[in-house]
Amino acid sequence: MAKNITKKSENYSQWYNDIVINADLAENSGVRGCMVIKPYGYAIWEQLQAQLDKMFKDTGHVNAYFPLFIPKSFFSKEASHVEGFAKECAIVTHYRLKNDENGSGVIVDPNAKLEEELIVRPTSETIIWDTYRKWVKSYRDLPILVNQWANVVRWEMRTRLFLRTAEFLWQEGHTAHADKKEAIHEAELILDIYAKFAKEFMCIPVIKGVKTESERFAGAIETYCIEALMQDGKALQAGTSHFLGQNFSKAFDVKFTNKDGRVKHVWSTSWGVSTRLMGALIMTHSDDQGLVLPPNLAPFQIVIIPIYRGGDELLILKKKCEEIRLVLMKMGYRVKLDLRDTHKPGWKFNEYEVKGVPIRIALGMRDLSEDSIEIFRRDTLTKQRVKINNLNTYVSKLLNDIQVNIFKKANEFLDKNTFVVDSLGEFKDKISSGGFVYAHWDGTSKTEGEIKKMTKATIRCVPIEKGEKGSCILTGKPSVKRVVFAKAY
Amino acid sequence: MAKNITKKSENYSQWYNDIVINADLAENSGVRGCMVIKPYGYAIWEQLQAQLDKMFKDTGHVNAYFPLFIPKSFFSKEASHVEGFAKECAIVTHYRLKNDENGSGVIVDPNAKLEEELIVRPTSETIIWDTYRKWVKSYRDLPILVNQWANVVRWEMRTRLFLRTAEFLWQEGHTAHADKKEAIHEAELILDIYAKFAKEFMCIPVIKGVKTESERFAGAIETYCIEALMQDGKALQAGTSHFLGQNFSKAFDVKFTNKDGRVKHVWSTSWGVSTRLMGALIMTHSDDQGLVLPPNLAPFQIVIIPIYRGGDELLILKKKCEEIRLVLMKMGYRVKLDLRDTHKPGWKFNEYEVKGVPIRIALGMRDLSEDSIEIFRRDTLTKQRVKINNLNTYVSKLLNDIQVNIFKKANEFLDKNTFVVDSLGEFKDKISSGGFVYAHWDGTSKTEGEIKKMTKATIRCVPIEKGEKGSCILTGKPSVKRVVFAKAY
Repeated sequence: MAKNITKKSENYSQWYNDIVINADLAENSGVRGCMVIKPYGYAIWEQLQAQLDKMFKDTGHVNAYFPLFIPKSFFSKEASHVEGFAKECAIVTHYRLKNDENGSGVIVDPNAKLEEELIVRPTSETIIWDTYRKWVKSYRDLPILVNQWANVVRWEMRTRLFLRTAEFLWQEGHTAHADKKEAIHEAELILDIYAKFAKEFMCIPVIKGVKTESERFAGAIETYCIEALMQDGKALQAGTSHFLGQNFSKAFDVKFTNKDGRVKHVWSTSWGVSTRLMGALIMTHSDDQGLVLPPNLAPFQIVIIPIYRGGDELLILKKKCEEIRLVLMKMGYRVKLDLRDTHKPGWKFNEYEVKGVPIRIALGMRDLSEDSIEIFRRDTLTKQRVKINNLNTYVSKLLNDIQVNIFKKANEFLDKNTFVVDSLGEFKDKISSGGFVYAHWDGTSKTEGEIKKMTKATIRCVPIEKGEKGSCILTGKPSVKRVVFAKAY
Repeated sequence: MAKNITKKSENYSQWYNDIVINADLAENSGVRGCMVIKPYGYAIWEQLQAQLDKMFKDTGHVNAYFPLFIPKSFFSKEASHVEGFAKECAIVTHYRLKNDENGSGVIVDPNAKLEEELIVRPTSETIIWDTYRKWVKSYRDLPILVNQWANVVRWEMRTRLFLRTAEFLWQEGHTAHADKKEAIHEAELILDIYAKFAKEFMCIPVIKGVKTESERFAGAIETYCIEALMQDGKALQAGTSHFLGQNFSKAFDVKFTNKDGRVKHVWSTSWGVSTRLMGALIMTHSDDQGLVLPPNLAPFQIVIIPIYRGGDELLILKKKCEEIRLVLMKMGYRVKLDLRDTHKPGWKFNEYEVKGVPIRIALGMRDLSEDSIEIFRRDTLTKQRVKINNLNTYVSKLLNDIQVNIFKKANEFLDKNTFVVDSLGEFKDKISSGGFVYAHWDGTSKTEGEIKKMTKATIRCVPIEKGEKGSCILTGKPSVKRVVFAKAY
């Protein structure tokens, strides 16, 4: 299989695509811009989902479900939101098909035209705030801390598996609060959850920051984000959390009576991550052999493969393999035992390497006679013979080591490709070869636009961490602190 | 709250609706026919989902995700499927909005018309079989045992929360097999899973059977189903599993090379349950006080409420309540401790009664001094004082008792409302008052149609269990065994 993967150094974009296809993660469908997420890819998404869902629930959030369709008029209610979202989207205009009288199959029934067109949700602020109006009357009804796992559609012209597809899966949180501070705190809390999740589960180091005005979510007062660095030196926005002020509560007239009996508009946030995270995961860790998965997110962390000649050997090895599997499963690990006799061991080795399974255990007749097994770790592509007696402790330590090592590697890459510059010349030099470039900026959209025109780099974020004052690399005007530039996905 | 619930005996349909609204399960949205599933309703759905998902995975199934949209032409490929599904559906015709030049908001951009219209999936056989063609080449690629959790849309004219909505959530399994027997076995395996799930988790007794030709899924050779009986004597189809033969593999040209090197079309099944199950759950167990939840599916099985006067008492009780919560959580139960000071204990009692929480624990100062608590069970509406020392064993036994009792009650209702008849007169008599009526039928769609016209009753299924021969109640012609008639949702 690995022979089907283009080398990263030869053609990064093709390499990415080859991994998605060869690791059986996803493929293009018969519907323009929409992908099929294949079982193995979906199993990784389920791990991501389960972990995030737990983190949301542990912080008091609950799930709910809102309609797929949004009446067209809802979009016009929040002025900047309509500019940002009611553009490239899927529009339902009719509700019935009928048989063509000329016998050429089914056609849209012209008599079944909707009075008002429905938009397939590109994001759900409008339909949700139309609903919250009914839920909120008193301060007793607040806060509302709701999340939704759903599919959304944005009509993208150029699509790439996971990174940019017309339909994608995501979670979108939508919260309502009695006061401003609490809402800002919520947006920041979620940013921290996203960053922690990226680091501890996906092994992806990120920069936390806020977006500039031009990159802000349509309808937000402040957009918080986490930005990750891919192996080609381009940035990828991995999650956003928006403080929406009272924009949506005013647009949808959502008011409450506070403890003092006064009627106020509520404050709100929204936040989301999507199947784009799968793209980030793939691009951060994979190598020329295929996918590399952090143990915390691998659908199976360990695969066991018997090495046999003929049915008799298989029968003997199978028994031992099942014992080993049981022991590891009891320890709480996700284990797969591959007993298929339709594929040769070598084929299997390769398959799981491409699929990024953290640990591979192989057991042959000689191993059995020596009470040992062969353990292969995917991240370093190295093998080790281990006594079966020591298996428990060895595997437990190894999984931990792999998780730590994968993050360490990604973090070193980030460090090596992060630059601090003080002049336009230096900036152009660094930005052309990729990476995050910290530079002073005068805070205006004009300057931001000129730099983008000149270099194709955008301001990924104004970092949350403290920084020192200086002068803008383009205009020389004062700058409060350096911001992070990069070319981006 | 309970005062807002219409009595079941007065107006069944209003009673159902009142429970959905008052138990905070769902509500109608601003979009015609689409519901909002509220957090508490969604939490029950999550329990259903988790349990079913586990049962599917334990039997070797995996999840995947396929596109929301299906090109119109896909529907025409399987002749009977197009008749059944490509009718009342949501049709996407355009992909862009623009600002109206007359300044009246956003309008559909006439220049952004799709070449081929896209249908929002009413079910996914067509898009999935178009995909499977690429996945299947050899017997080594079979079986495919894939399930999808997704939203689907069917443009229903008359909608009711959970029971019939334009958009609903469901799971749809789509499997591909090398031979016919294996596919039939799969369809039957899933039927058994559905029946076991209904019984053991939802406490709903069901009849397992197969549909007659007129009620069969569009594109199926055989439709297996589970049928449940609601408290108004009407039947509700709670899940279906279809043996599709080679209909879809032929329509989408999905072939494989078998072990003998010959090229064959694959065999297939599809199967699903939806948020309609929520309707079945509500209608099977609820009473005039509200929802009644089986402990196995309750988002929280136990709620703890302190009874206090003033902050000092609350402080003391809070400590003990938290201890109790921790003990019960460690035993693996889902427990909620309601410490809100914005609502009085009586209000809370009522809220959780309406929401069907199986066990309510109340703790006041007197209880504390006597080392006891008050335990209320929702299914029988009875109270008991219990020593805190005995709490563990008491609660563990009680939850089990409640689960058993709720099923027993539903099963007794089913028994009492199941009739075996031998003449048309008897049949009309029994069917008019509701329930399942077992009667002989000559096996023709004509007779089935005439009986339906006469009584509004349909054949819910031909039961799987054995039966005796006889003569059709309408025509007197021979009948292999009695079939199950009922009026249905």
